[in-house]
Amino acid sequence: MAQQEHQSCIEACDACAAACDHCATACLSEPNVAAMVECIKSDMDCADICRLASAVMARDSSRAQEICSLCASICDACAAECEKHQHEHCKQCAEACRKCADECRGMSR
Amino acid sequence: MAQQEHQSCIEACDACAAACDHCATACLSEPNVAAMVECIKSDMDCADICRLASAVMARDSSRAQEICSLCASICDACAAECEKHQHEHCKQCAEACRKCADECRGMSR
Amino acid sequence: MAQQEHQSCIEACDACAAACDHCATACLSEPNVAAMVECIKSDMDCADICRLASAVMARDSSRAQEICSLCASICDACAAECEKHQHEHCKQCAEACRKCADECRGMSR
Amino acid sequence: MAQQEHQSCIEACDACAAACDHCATACLSEPNVAAMVECIKSDMDCADICRLASAVMARDSSRAQEICSLCASICDACAAECEKHQHEHCKQCAEACRKCADECRGMSR
Repeated sequence: MAQQEHQSCIEACDACAAACDHCATACLSEPNVAAMVECIKSDMDCADICRLASAVMARDSSRAQEICSLCASICDACAAECEKHQHEHCKQCAEACRKCADECRGMSR
Repeated sequence: MAQQEHQSCIEACDACAAACDHCATACLSEPNVAAMVECIKSDMDCADICRLASAVMARDSSRAQEICSLCASICDACAAECEKHQHEHCKQCAEACRKCADECRGMSR
Repeated sequence: MAQQEHQSCIEACDACAAACDHCATACLSEPNVAAMVECIKSDMDCADICRLASAVMARDSSRAQEICSLCASICDACAAECEKHQHEHCKQCAEACRKCADECRGMSR
Repeated sequence: MAQQEHQSCIEACDACAAACDHCATACLSEPNVAAMVECIKSDMDCADICRLASAVMARDSSRAQEICSLCASICDACAAECEKHQHEHCKQCAEACRKCADECRGMSR
């Protein structure tokens, strides 16, 4: 079944969404929050597209590949932004984004 | 940190959302789809509230407990509906809903 | 400001999401629900991408154009599916989808 | 039909979600972003619950009243936070939140 087929990509998307949401909140608690604005914004976009990608894969939607392709691109951009920062939450988020991007590229091929 | 604290509940919500979305699609492919209408509707509500609960926990939101409390109630109702049916996807969904309801009740206590 | 710039496209996306959700539920109440399965599935995808497009425009996201471009394509497919059916909710949904597709194409140009 | 019944509440929820998303982004561009952290967080929660409330009303869900009741409470809290600030986007957001809270209370009564 579709859900099993896409299981590892669904899990990577869910983990990435949680890492992005967590990173956004943690960025808002950093002393120099002004330096984290772009990171917060990319976290918000990335969390949203990851949850959509997860949902359409679980529903075995005919548009899952296109949505995963866009998700991979947004995850890569979020990882690149997070990698500019030394905070532990940014490093963990970047790692989750890179993993999700890889899974989504595999899905959309 | 909040994300780690809530980790098992976040994962239960994500797994439940995926099980609900999968069950809804599988119900739509059943020969007697008319018998599955209530199941499809409760799957849609449950998937949505689970994804919201997951997001607010990952963001360590001040409203996470209230949202998890409502999520537990919606998960229980979805489980009760799924348990009326013999399809494998309904059984798996009911199990994911019961687990998520337990985790969300623990969170909102 | 961004919100004002994108106002008509945001409103078209919100109206389309509501029309799709309403059409999905109404399809589930039709006597011949088995004939409406593809319509229900496309409604679900279309409602989700419209809400995402609306959110990223309201946030003035750098990815808004790409997401609106994908939204336009999913709206067109949902309209084409709805146009196969004679139900009033399908006709209204098709109209909302066509309008949203036009707005999103204008946004993503 | 349900959609028409709930039309004004759906529109208030959609307008509130857009105002919250817009306010969050505008807060992130304020010179003193550190002062806007609570506002950004409440905007994120409020936008999410408003979109969920809008969706469940459009689907005529049996859980719409409970979700609208929670939405009203979250909208009130977001309005109270926005009213602490003098930015135009905060004022507009507070107004949208108060209107949405009123509509949602009417729905959930």
